[in-house]
Amino acid sequence: MDSSSVSVGLLGWGTVGTGVSKILVNQNELISQNAGVRLRLAKIAKRTLPASSDGFRLPSECFTTKPAEVIDDPDIDIVVELIGGVTHARRFIVRAIQNGKHVVTANKALLAEHGFELFQLASKMKVSLNFEASTAGGIPIIKTLKESFAANRIESIYGIINGTCNYILTQMHEEGADFDEVLREAQTLGYAEADPMLDIEGIDAAQKLTLLTALAYGFNIPLRGIYTEGVTKITQKEIQHAHELGYVIKLLAIAKRNRGKIEARVHPTMVPVRSMLANVGGAFNTVCVIGDAVGPTLFYGQGAGEMPTASAVVADIIDSAKSICGHTDAHVPRGWLSESQSDVSACPIDAIETRYYVRLMALDQPGVLAQVSSIFSAHNISIASLIQKERHETDGTASIVMVTHEAIEKDMQAAMQKIDALDTIKRTSQLIRIEDEVAF
Amino acid sequence: MDSSSVSVGLLGWGTVGTGVSKILVNQNELISQNAGVRLRLAKIAKRTLPASSDGFRLPSECFTTKPAEVIDDPDIDIVVELIGGVTHARRFIVRAIQNGKHVVTANKALLAEHGFELFQLASKMKVSLNFEASTAGGIPIIKTLKESFAANRIESIYGIINGTCNYILTQMHEEGADFDEVLREAQTLGYAEADPMLDIEGIDAAQKLTLLTALAYGFNIPLRGIYTEGVTKITQKEIQHAHELGYVIKLLAIAKRNRGKIEARVHPTMVPVRSMLANVGGAFNTVCVIGDAVGPTLFYGQGAGEMPTASAVVADIIDSAKSICGHTDAHVPRGWLSESQSDVSACPIDAIETRYYVRLMALDQPGVLAQVSSIFSAHNISIASLIQKERHETDGTASIVMVTHEAIEKDMQAAMQKIDALDTIKRTSQLIRIEDEVAF
Repeated sequence: MDSSSVSVGLLGWGTVGTGVSKILVNQNELISQNAGVRLRLAKIAKRTLPASSDGFRLPSECFTTKPAEVIDDPDIDIVVELIGGVTHARRFIVRAIQNGKHVVTANKALLAEHGFELFQLASKMKVSLNFEASTAGGIPIIKTLKESFAANRIESIYGIINGTCNYILTQMHEEGADFDEVLREAQTLGYAEADPMLDIEGIDAAQKLTLLTALAYGFNIPLRGIYTEGVTKITQKEIQHAHELGYVIKLLAIAKRNRGKIEARVHPTMVPVRSMLANVGGAFNTVCVIGDAVGPTLFYGQGAGEMPTASAVVADIIDSAKSICGHTDAHVPRGWLSESQSDVSACPIDAIETRYYVRLMALDQPGVLAQVSSIFSAHNISIASLIQKERHETDGTASIVMVTHEAIEKDMQAAMQKIDALDTIKRTSQLIRIEDEVAF
Repeated sequence: MDSSSVSVGLLGWGTVGTGVSKILVNQNELISQNAGVRLRLAKIAKRTLPASSDGFRLPSECFTTKPAEVIDDPDIDIVVELIGGVTHARRFIVRAIQNGKHVVTANKALLAEHGFELFQLASKMKVSLNFEASTAGGIPIIKTLKESFAANRIESIYGIINGTCNYILTQMHEEGADFDEVLREAQTLGYAEADPMLDIEGIDAAQKLTLLTALAYGFNIPLRGIYTEGVTKITQKEIQHAHELGYVIKLLAIAKRNRGKIEARVHPTMVPVRSMLANVGGAFNTVCVIGDAVGPTLFYGQGAGEMPTASAVVADIIDSAKSICGHTDAHVPRGWLSESQSDVSACPIDAIETRYYVRLMALDQPGVLAQVSSIFSAHNISIASLIQKERHETDGTASIVMVTHEAIEKDMQAAMQKIDALDTIKRTSQLIRIEDEVAF
């Protein structure tokens, strides 16, 4: 494993910056194993030095109030820009690139406006400028378009890429509340900014769409070239009529081919109630990409927030670090580093704990249920619901369907063996495991 | 742009191999723009030379019946193994790696069994061994786990990663048919192999799960360590009871942490009917990954088939080619190669064609509908459905809700301007675009 250490400096230490620090400090070993690079959080530039009461503590010598101490420090390899805004961020990134540093940014506004200048400069200086966290938070849609779908002619993209709007529209659909009311609630809960204009007017989504369009179609569309309509005029009446017509209203960012040109637009859109997009609720993001080879694809996850966004930022840092280390693809994936790994082992099926669906095919005699219940009880299995099916089969049996509470597989198997051996049970019972936790 | 040319040789020319050839030949320029590398399809080894009637024609000098002419050719940089099976594939890949060639494979059976040996050898020879197409076809789940989620401690993975089983279970749910009947139908339609054992017994899914588990947990679990139960004993009764209980039966591949150990299992599972996994129909694949930083994520797409799988294979070829070219991350993403791209341009919103939801707030007078209809008609807009709402507002208006057939935005805007100017229309009408095509 490559053990070179790569130094990382942060500009900005708000929500995402804190998340990035947590990962760099707490997951240093994991990252080294996964990626073969060792990252070191060297310095953080922040407007004011952090108070000792701040949640995540770092040594005070990590902090500076001078961005130059990050940008101009010859020991720093990768500069991560997380201050947002355009003017200062642009100046800092330009200087960092000119200093030969690799740059990671989550700044969609900056790239939408100055992407051409910045990528050209990065290319000239032979450094990377990575921006996964700029769009759809933790969903790796930038890398997917750049790398995984690089052999595809992209037909269309449909994205729910503004969590604030999606939260508001979801609440309007589910609670029957009006726009203003839901917006206030979203602001209280932290799902909407105090000044929510960029979100609710669709501008944030349009900025992100310029990045997706650039990657998918090789087309650097200016923000003003994107038709943008927000969600402010959607009323509860529209929500209800949509419902009656079999639709759900979502703020979609859409890019698609239209007779040799590219449509790029952001607006409230009615999508069929049974479509996957319609079922993306709350602050989640989803991007659908249809490629000529890969066909329809969909990517779903948290589009914002401290840790999901930090996950994407650190993935970018890792990519830059690999390229700094001259890291080839020959790094052994973590699972195959050694023949058996010491830190984990397989959990035998006997030890899993889950809920079970059971169908017994029993003779319709008094006492069967009592026998079965007593066996389950002896094995610490409790029945959550029971359906006795009336209809008899040709062999004189009736189905008894049960759902258990959480039980241990070993107990369940032992109980089923005894049950299937009963005289009154005529065929091997059916046993199907239930997973309720996948309910997202 | 880097214009180095990288030579690619294929072993095997079945469905996926043909798809890979099509992309390498037809999308050569696109790939060069997207990735900054030029790929050249140099040679294809195939058991018998292709008949001239084969769908996709290549010059006959491209073909050989001798694998050695691919593996041992010093001019070939990347060997793509698409013959499947374990014995020959292993031998060919070992020799290719020993010859210093980068290898791309879609062979989950091989990696599940011999991953350790092959990755160690590749690392020793400093070549890449990429395998995106081995799991979930066109869905970039391998790269996501290896790179995008490298900073995450993975909590759990839930995958629908066998399209044959998912097709069969979906048909059983939707058509009410029994297993044997649906299997025969799937075989006729090409969704199931003539010998479907590896699929319907869950073995294919278990092989793929070993790869996901290795990447997610650094744990090289042997196939025999995965509890594997197929779908053959699922009857229509189970399907119906699941439905009554609010569940859908899916074949899930599950890996998750359990008290410091890793559960890895494949079995029919009841998942809540309203969950996203329950709604993955037909031959589609879906992988849910829950990471400690990124949170819950979901990836959906075609898990098999000529072009989706080829999309993943070529993405791997491109990654290897970049590493051969010493390609840094400094390649400018395609959208920012030049300030304006010549081959595409923005389609103005005026030119889009879609269906519209319209709500007019009109005085409840005779003749309003006639006026509106005549304006729409004059602008080539035809009404698909109309709901006149009875309830009056305090200002004496009633809502008239309409859905149009496909219309051109320019016409729609012109019509709406005239309609909103009518004396009988009291407030600005609501207009929401409808997208029916996102219905996947």
